[in-house]
Amino acid sequence: MYGSVTPDIIDELKSIVGEKHVSTSLVDRLVCSRDLWFPMLFKTLKGELWPTADVVVWPGSAEEVSEVLKLANKRRVPVVTLGGGAGVCGGLSPIRGGIVMDIKRMCKVLELDEESLTVVVQAGLIGMELEEYLNRKGYTLGHYPLSIYASTIGGFLACRSAGVLSNKYGKIEDMVIALRVVLPTGEIIETKRVPRRATGPDLMQLFVGSEGILGVITEAALRIHPYPEKRIFTSYRFKDLHAGLEAVRNIFRRGVRPAIVRLYDERDTKITLGSLGLPAEGCLLILSFEGTEKLVDAEAEVADEVCRQWGGEQLGDLPAKHWWKHRHDQYWNLPHLLKGFMIVDTIEVSAPWDRLERLYWEVKRALEGQGVIPMAHFSHFYLDGGSIYFTFVKPREPKTPINDAYWRIWSAAMEACIRVGGSISHHHGVGLVRSPWMEKEHGKSFEIIRALKKVLDPNNILNPGKLGMVGWSEVRRVF
Amino acid sequence: MYGSVTPDIIDELKSIVGEKHVSTSLVDRLVCSRDLWFPMLFKTLKGELWPTADVVVWPGSAEEVSEVLKLANKRRVPVVTLGGGAGVCGGLSPIRGGIVMDIKRMCKVLELDEESLTVVVQAGLIGMELEEYLNRKGYTLGHYPLSIYASTIGGFLACRSAGVLSNKYGKIEDMVIALRVVLPTGEIIETKRVPRRATGPDLMQLFVGSEGILGVITEAALRIHPYPEKRIFTSYRFKDLHAGLEAVRNIFRRGVRPAIVRLYDERDTKITLGSLGLPAEGCLLILSFEGTEKLVDAEAEVADEVCRQWGGEQLGDLPAKHWWKHRHDQYWNLPHLLKGFMIVDTIEVSAPWDRLERLYWEVKRALEGQGVIPMAHFSHFYLDGGSIYFTFVKPREPKTPINDAYWRIWSAAMEACIRVGGSISHHHGVGLVRSPWMEKEHGKSFEIIRALKKVLDPNNILNPGKLGMVGWSEVRRVF
Repeated sequence: MYGSVTPDIIDELKSIVGEKHVSTSLVDRLVCSRDLWFPMLFKTLKGELWPTADVVVWPGSAEEVSEVLKLANKRRVPVVTLGGGAGVCGGLSPIRGGIVMDIKRMCKVLELDEESLTVVVQAGLIGMELEEYLNRKGYTLGHYPLSIYASTIGGFLACRSAGVLSNKYGKIEDMVIALRVVLPTGEIIETKRVPRRATGPDLMQLFVGSEGILGVITEAALRIHPYPEKRIFTSYRFKDLHAGLEAVRNIFRRGVRPAIVRLYDERDTKITLGSLGLPAEGCLLILSFEGTEKLVDAEAEVADEVCRQWGGEQLGDLPAKHWWKHRHDQYWNLPHLLKGFMIVDTIEVSAPWDRLERLYWEVKRALEGQGVIPMAHFSHFYLDGGSIYFTFVKPREPKTPINDAYWRIWSAAMEACIRVGGSISHHHGVGLVRSPWMEKEHGKSFEIIRALKKVLDPNNILNPGKLGMVGWSEVRRVF
Repeated sequence: MYGSVTPDIIDELKSIVGEKHVSTSLVDRLVCSRDLWFPMLFKTLKGELWPTADVVVWPGSAEEVSEVLKLANKRRVPVVTLGGGAGVCGGLSPIRGGIVMDIKRMCKVLELDEESLTVVVQAGLIGMELEEYLNRKGYTLGHYPLSIYASTIGGFLACRSAGVLSNKYGKIEDMVIALRVVLPTGEIIETKRVPRRATGPDLMQLFVGSEGILGVITEAALRIHPYPEKRIFTSYRFKDLHAGLEAVRNIFRRGVRPAIVRLYDERDTKITLGSLGLPAEGCLLILSFEGTEKLVDAEAEVADEVCRQWGGEQLGDLPAKHWWKHRHDQYWNLPHLLKGFMIVDTIEVSAPWDRLERLYWEVKRALEGQGVIPMAHFSHFYLDGGSIYFTFVKPREPKTPINDAYWRIWSAAMEACIRVGGSISHHHGVGLVRSPWMEKEHGKSFEIIRALKKVLDPNNILNPGKLGMVGWSEVRRVF
């Protein structure tokens, strides 16, 4: 059992991080105990509360994080780490109370190495602040998730985040070179900042994606790129999804790596092209290429050849540029959308090429089976496969309990994904919402995650229950 | 303490893998208990023995591997896994006896997925057999280590191997999509074959580089590429190493990814260009570009611009093509070279760009301080850094014990590397030779490797002592 947060613990926390960096006020505890998971939003709109921590602390350094964890470990108090709170999976919900540790005071750029094209930052830095800093110096990280104004580097890393240019620059796990991590017992470790090495397992990739259960990431070294000298936007219309997917697959096969690749299914195309006053048929593909002028020109040429081979109709740069300009508009719009529907949510999944199209149809059918209206785009591609991003709404059904409906939708989608052999998440992470499917996702290797948790966090204080360590009943207790 | 390999264990092994796949003959035990580490070679030439296993088994499937490990775990018998035996670090030396498990019977291509550009193979397949299979089908893995005729996919993965085209295709850890692994307790686990996901830590990267201490890799899914439609070779001469390195750094910075990049230091240039009858001054740079014609042409053009900016003199394609054609000649030549010298060995290290040149000078000085004649080339580059490959000979000194001299050379090089902040290995791995420096390489995070070993292999049966788990005294017992 966990110890409670007694007044002497509060006093000790104050002596570690300073009095003004500890709060037990209800407002702080509420605000810092939630992310953007749909059930949180729903509770907010209904005026219901959600599970909250007993105290919020704002440490200013890895050393302070270490002291907080040592204290929590000694007194068996749960600790949840808060970055930007922009997650959509309930990953930071302090379901067993305890301490929320908000890392946003640790928000400095520590080093810009222009020779090695590496930036070293504290984990609490907001994504857009880093990107703007880099842009001013002539560089880019190339990591533009739609949450970029609201999310932190630490959060990106903890959840294996992807940005809209991932096709060229990779996901955050492809950008990170080294980490500084505080272990649950307070030990501070660092991985070496070298491009590649052959000195054992990659320990860094243990903490990337660990969603706060194995350690607290306090610093990261990330690979950066010169700000592109040229950017080309272009768009195509394909007669159906299959033709569009084959075009993208062959673009990658020929060695081209566009920055943006967004292929919309027919419903999403209707909305997207319709809003531009263009004929809204078929499937829209948006592409961008960026980097050195000569290379970018050659890439756009090869991609154009491939698109034409697959029957793509050139639509010019308008749809692509329009999307790029307005890409953040929808992000802040979710509460507004909810007024018209019972449930609004997103599910992203991934698969190899040979299963990608089937994954689309099976998840779509599963969602539709739950009375849901889904639309989808494919926006993160690799030589060997890609991801699908479903956005769906469920019209109001006054007699159906919303949480039952919610879990039936998620169950149908997750089970369909596992049946096809896809992965249940491409870049949003696990949190609470996918926890019930982690054993099916990993099979027997889930035991290794369990063993890692036990050996690194013997008292189970770090974000207990998350990343699949929680039973259905506890997930349902929250929603 | 370990149990010994008693006759009943031999009988049980026979019942698992079949009688003809178990051997206790001295020749088999000797041949299967060594790699190409210099001390092994030296012992061979001197007619001395090296540590040998008590029995050799050749399992035919993951299930048989599992049964062997269950038996070994129950009876506390060490197990070392043998791939091609082409390692150069003593990594498979069975220093505590027991079983050597040769996986080369597991050598099938299980699946070629031409849609997802993925090949699934058994771990005992020889690299060149896979590459030739793929070439016949119109593909390439892009992994060409010089040992490719003698080494296995499992060995590549266990040691984080790099091939000569790594600049474009990455190291083996960048090519692997999924693994099947038998844990020390006999449990068989599989990671999911998806391009990317966000469902926790990357467990696959725990076993990649684990050099046989955490599990036995029995299958791997690897990313493949269409066989390049065009290949361009070119060469440049720079006035010194600094100019050559700046050219390469800027080639990468401009987004070009040559397949081959080899920059030779002045001594290596003398030998390489001299043998072609060309003026042997300055530093030679060899480049190749491969893939889709339009992209390759653009890459070669941009690279040429950069090389000229840094004072590079175009030498045409001869040096590059000559190297490509004769790249395997030296590989088989080591015993011959040893006739003229006391010690012949190689050390490869890596560092970010801002430390790469200093790493070269410091390791070179350290080697020269030990009376060694070093030469070096830089052949694996990244946006954020690169690796250096030192080849060195030590002239005969009749009065110096060869093993003392050997360890003084390695100590000097390793300590210099750690001082500069480089990594002690880029792609050869740790084995025995780098074990004494693993704690310095990893700092406190080495404790995590120790903890992983303890939790996955509670009886310490898998390749005990390797990857830094061994003390100096045991290393020196072998050589």
